Order: sequence, then structure tokens, then C-alpha cells
Amino acid sequence: MSVAEINKNEVDIVIGALNADLTQFLSSWRTFFSGFHLIVVKDPELKEELNIPEGFDVDVYTKTDMEKVLGSTNSTMFSGYSCRYFGYLVSKKKYIVSIDDDCVPAKDPQGFLVDAVSQHVINLETPATPLFFNTLYDPYCEGADFVRGYPFSLRSGVPCAASCGLWLNLADLDAPTQALKTEQRNTSYVDAVMTVPAKAMLPISGINIAFNRELVGPALVPALRLAGEGKVRWETLEDVWCGMCLKHISDHLGYGVKTGKPYVWRNERGDAVESLRKKWEGMKLMEKSVPFFESLKLPESALKVEDCVIELAKAVKEQLGSDDPAFTQAADAMVKWIQLWNSVNSSG
Amino acid sequence: MSVAEINKNEVDIVIGALNADLTQFLSSWRTFFSGFHLIVVKDPELKEELNIPEGFDVDVYTKTDMEKVLGSTNSTMFSGYSCRYFGYLVSKKKYIVSIDDDCVPAKDPQGFLVDAVSQHVINLETPATPLFFNTLYDPYCEGADFVRGYPFSLRSGVPCAASCGLWLNLADLDAPTQALKTEQRNTSYVDAVMTVPAKAMLPISGINIAFNRELVGPALVPALRLAGEGKVRWETLEDVWCGMCLKHISDHLGYGVKTGKPYVWRNERGDAVESLRKKWEGMKLMEKSVPFFESLKLPESALKVEDCVIELAKAVKEQLGSDDPAFTQAADAMVKWIQLWNSVNSSG
Repeated sequence: MSVAEINKNEVDIVIGALNADLTQFLSSWRTFFSGFHLIVVKDPELKEELNIPEGFDVDVYTKTDMEKVLGSTNSTMFSGYSCRYFGYLVSKKKYIVSIDDDCVPAKDPQGFLVDAVSQHVINLETPATPLFFNTLYDPYCEGADFVRGYPFSLRSGVPCAASCGLWLNLADLDAPTQALKTEQRNTSYVDAVMTVPAKAMLPISGINIAFNRELVGPALVPALRLAGEGKVRWETLEDVWCGMCLKHISDHLGYGVKTGKPYVWRNERGDAVESLRKKWEGMKLMEKSVPFFESLKLPESALKVEDCVIELAKAVKEQLGSDDPAFTQAADAMVKWIQLWNSVNSSG
Repeated sequence: MSVAEINKNEVDIVIGALNADLTQFLSSWRTFFSGFHLIVVKDPELKEELNIPEGFDVDVYTKTDMEKVLGSTNSTMFSGYSCRYFGYLVSKKKYIVSIDDDCVPAKDPQGFLVDAVSQHVINLETPATPLFFNTLYDPYCEGADFVRGYPFSLRSGVPCAASCGLWLNLADLDAPTQALKTEQRNTSYVDAVMTVPAKAMLPISGINIAFNRELVGPALVPALRLAGEGKVRWETLEDVWCGMCLKHISDHLGYGVKTGKPYVWRNERGDAVESLRKKWEGMKLMEKSVPFFESLKLPESALKVEDCVIELAKAVKEQLGSDDPAFTQAADAMVKWIQLWNSVNSSG
């Protein structure tokens, strides 16, 4: 499919505002965001007024909106990078595209700016192929095809649940790596989209992601928060954990997850060496999470995404709860999230 | 690791000669084959004398050599593209690199000729990461790294069993696709190497491949031959089937399989439309093979590659034998192959 065929009414672009001044960010994306509806969610911990340039079709959500939905509960669930999830909750669209506010459009090797929004939507609109690996990458891309030996019965693929984009310049590294390799930059533009095979685990990043909200919306759950989490990505784990849940649920329900293009250009934010002084708790939690997800088997009776999240939360509490209080909190947050999702999405 | 660190004495380059005149082929590879030992195996059905240019360190094997090893049995097992396997059998080296004789060095996007031999050896020498998917591709490539969330306990990786290279110009398509899309050419150079996740199935192509013979040599088995198989790749299935076996055995033994770079440039050979007149039996056999490999579980007692192949042959005969005589023949060939392997490799 081509860019011209994209139905812009089916897409919400969700931006978590961790910085008050969105002028540079939105201006850099103007060409590609034009005609799309934007949901800007202000980090509830951010005090300053947002600065949003003219000419965008945008709805802004703040702490007040969160409190309306959450009732008496406080808005911690949506603080920091997690504010994006509030946008996922209140959207009414089929597709969500979400890009961190420290990213600008990347250039491809030919020097053209990358239209990340359209590439994400194309990834989501075309089928995924998680059941058999195609060495020629996404066979639905222009000029690509299925390789010899690819089973014909699997060539129609399955619905694509999510599209995980990548980053040029500052790659998405964890705190220790980022602090140890402060000078390292990602300069490698890999011209490919591919489906991550079923059953394979991957750490999905929330920096540059899109998903089919109708298919898997409730699986994008803000759950695991690190105690020392700051306002830089390399200190967070919420999106990685959410991604592990999303991938497992997609596998269970027969959907695919793609990774690769589109790239965005990530600018520096924060002091990586400063992060070295904090203990990166994420490391320890991931070591516990891997065997958990590896052995996890959702019951066949879990047919809806909501059921899957609830079952997953149950398993987290039972199997990981005693290891670290962060897991118990994550399980509780997952249950709370589904309650919220049901109330917001049934009342509309 | 760098090209300079490659120990050329550890590598055999195996070429199956389906054409008598290797002048153009070998001349095009001279720079990159220089200093390596070559094993040229002549297709036993090829009548003409081989034409091999001066200046290569090469041993040639012919039908006579095959008959010496096979005893009274005929050499059909090694006819056509399967002649390569005879080279795998008689090699004494750690690594095998094998490239079809209709391929020449490809150019990378900067216009430099690709050193496919060195890239394959580097892929094999560096660890593979089949247990967790790294969205930043092979983390052992220069400038690459593990992405945030990648478990630290899995960052040392596992031994790499095989490196599957790709093709520019004529991609490796099956007979129907090739015949229907005669004009289609692969122009997409994807600058990446990656490990195919454990448990994922893929159709490995024999056109441009390398493997660690010490680790998995006997798993590269000439077994499944199509009745109508000709002298063009799109009519064969031997390598795809062999690749399914290799991947499954690698998963079972805890090794990884990489795919991606290096590319080779594939020239046209044969008439694709002519192939349309033949029924491509491979299609039917793959449909049967997929659920077989998907549910296959080698016994834990199979600790050696040879044991794995024997167990696999047993399962093929039991579960697929009644579907198609090609499977029974494949199972028998696998057992025969292990006998050959043991006799050739213990007598040395």
C-alpha cells in the first residue's frame, strides 16, 4: 500500500509532553503530522504551561483530565513517560502512533526525511508473518517477496498488532551502557522491516512505536515502574515490560509484531554519567522477567486482550510477587488499567 | 573482530561445479578467495572437463572420488546441487563457506565489492543471540550494541552454528514465483546481520551459506530430493529441507543461526517460464514439513549432532513416510549420510 491510501481519520498521534516547550519538536514533524489528529498528554509532574505551535489538530490532556477519569486515585500511574498511556486510553482511533518528544525526523541514506507516521501505518495495515521467518524481510514491502521454501499456506500472514521503530544518533540503550559509552552513536540505517517470530521475546521500546488499538489496545499497559526512574529513557523499564506483555499477548492471540523502519533521530537529553550513580534496578527485574515470560502460558480461555492482561497480572503476582515489590505493584496496576480501559471505553 | 584476524587455515571454501567452465566465477572471486583452500566438487552428471583458472589452492573431487567413498552405491546422492555436500564430508576444516557457481561478489551501497568469505567467518566467530531478540540487530557488529532491556545474563550469547547470506539481483525465489515475476530483481541491500530466534523456522538457502563444521557438520545433510529437480535453484528443495534440519538441531543443542549479510550477486541461469511447465513438488512437501518441524521434539538424550540427525530421520519416517515417498527416501538418506560421515571422519 502507498502513503496516499492512508486514512488519516483512523490514526491518533500520541505525544507525551515531558517538556513544556513543544515548538521545536512539533515544527520538525509538521509535514508528517499534518492532517492527523494529535493527542498531547502533559506529564502530571510538569508544572509549566505547554507551548504548542499553531496549525495542529490537537487535544491536550493534563493532570485534571487524568483525575476526572481516575476518580479519587492520584495520577502517579501516568507520571513521567507513562503519561502517553493516558492518550492510548482516551483515543477512539484504530491506530496509535507515539513518538518521544526528544525525537525529530531522521534522514534516510538518500538524504530524504523519513515519514515515520506513514511508515508505521503501512507496517500495521499490511500482514505480519510471525509463524515462519522470511529471510528477505517483510514480504509485503515494495519489491520484496517470499523466499523459496516459504510455505504457501502461511503467505497470507496474520494481522499486525504493533510496529516498533528504531533510532538514529542516540540509540535506545540502558543506563549502564549509555553511561559507559557516552560517545557511541547509532549511524546504521538498516533498510528493513521484519516480523519478530512468534515465541521470541524482545524488549519493545516506547520511543517510536505504533499499534493497532482496536486489536491490542489494552495490552499497552503502564505497569512496571522503577523506584529510581527519572526523566530519561535509559532509566525507565515501563515500556520494555509493557512490550514483553504486548508480544506475549500478540503471540497468544495470533497477531504479529514488526520491528525495523521507520527510524527517528534521537537527540540527547539528560546526563548519562549522572545515571551511573543510580543503581539500575531494571537489570535485576529483567533477569527475573525473562524466565517468567519464557514459561508463561496464558489459558486458552483468554480470548480477549482484556482477559489476557488479567491472566498475566495473576501470573505475575503469583510467580514474581515474592521476588520484588515492583512486580506486585505492576500486577495491581495491570488490573487497575483494565478496569479503567473498560470504564472509559464502554462509557463512550 | 576484523578481517585481519581471520585464520585462513581454518576455512574451506566449497564450490559445487554444475558448469564445467569456472573461469569467470573464480576470477570474479579471486581477491576474496586468495589464501583460502578451495574444494571444488564436480556434479557427477556433468560430462565435460572442468576449466579452473591458475592461481588457486584447490582440490577437485569427481564422481570417481564419490564412488571410492560410497563403495558400491551410486553417486545419485551427490548429483546436481547436492554435490556440495561431498565437499562438506571430506573437509577437515572448522568452517565451511559455500557459494553457488552462478554468483559473483555483490557491491555494497558505497560501491565496494563485498568480501563474502570474511563476513561469513566473522558471523561464525562472533556469538549468536537466539534466546532474546535484539532490535538493534547483531550486537557484535561494529558500532552496534544491546538495546535497553536486553537481559545481561544473555549478552554473552551462544556459539554461532551457521551464517546464511543473501542475494542481490536474482533473489532466491521458488519456481512459481520466479516464473510469474520474471522481471523482478532484488535491489534492496539491507545492512544487517541478525540471529534468527530459537524455535523460529526459516527456509535456509544453500546458495550463499557458511557453517561451523566442527559444531554442526553432520547436520548439513543431502536428503530431500524432488523428482523433477533440475539444474536451477528454483526447482530444488534439498537445501531448504537441510536448513530446516540444521535450524532445529541448532536450537536443540543451544547454538544460533544468523542471517543477513553478506550479499552475493546472483546471475540468471535457466528459463523460469520453462519451470512453470513442471509441477513444483516442493510446495506440497513444505506444507507437510512445517507442522512436522513445529511439533518435533528431539529426545534430550540426543547430545551429538549425529544422534540428532538419526532421531530426526526416525521421526521423518514415522510421521511423514506415509505422506510421500520423498520423505522415506529423505529419512534413509539421512541415516546413510551419518554412516558416511562417521566412516570418512573417523578413518582420517
